[in-house]
Amino acid sequence: MPKFDDRGLLSAVVVDAHSKDVLMVAFMDREALDLTLETREAHFHSRSRGRLWKKGESSGNVLKVQEILVDCDQDAVVLECIPAGPTCHTGATSCFYRVVDGRTLQPVKT
Amino acid sequence: MPKFDDRGLLSAVVVDAHSKDVLMVAFMDREALDLTLETREAHFHSRSRGRLWKKGESSGNVLKVQEILVDCDQDAVVLECIPAGPTCHTGATSCFYRVVDGRTLQPVKT
Repeated sequence: MPKFDDRGLLSAVVVDAHSKDVLMVAFMDREALDLTLETREAHFHSRSRGRLWKKGESSGNVLKVQEILVDCDQDAVVLECIPAGPTCHTGATSCFYRVVDGRTLQPVKT
Repeated sequence: MPKFDDRGLLSAVVVDAHSKDVLMVAFMDREALDLTLETREAHFHSRSRGRLWKKGESSGNVLKVQEILVDCDQDAVVLECIPAGPTCHTGATSCFYRVVDGRTLQPVKT
């Protein structure tokens, strides 16, 4: 089963189950993973706030989890999700809306 | 520009530029990011070995970087890559070759 690092965390990558776009990257502790498995809605651990958070708890933009993949050494998971709305707090569909172009950032070409 | 956490790291997600499958998840420090930007081949920081590593340095299965996306708070990147071979050390195309099914792991259905 998943292995947590010395901080009790593993990496969690959220991808859109249909488009396969990466929507966000966050961390999970055991509590967040257990709640995600139980409720099939994505929960994470906020390092900055030092607490559990359910994605969409304030915005309503929850992530319905269709499938959870785990990597070879079991310290990272991919959550294939159906998002209820924009995933990014900026209103963007994905948090990854910019590309690194040399030393500057540019919007993703769509 | 990208922000590194209190350990000097950011999360890096490798996706296949064609299939969009998530191939692996790792960490980068500034040195790894700079070398990736310079060489357009993926470099990471190994937490377990405490050193820089170039993906494929021993296997030859390097990752050619086509595009680098950065997230809203700039502490995670997505590398869109063309892999020279299987990404996983097990020989699997992706490190994410199993799904969490309740409390057990099952192979991904293809």
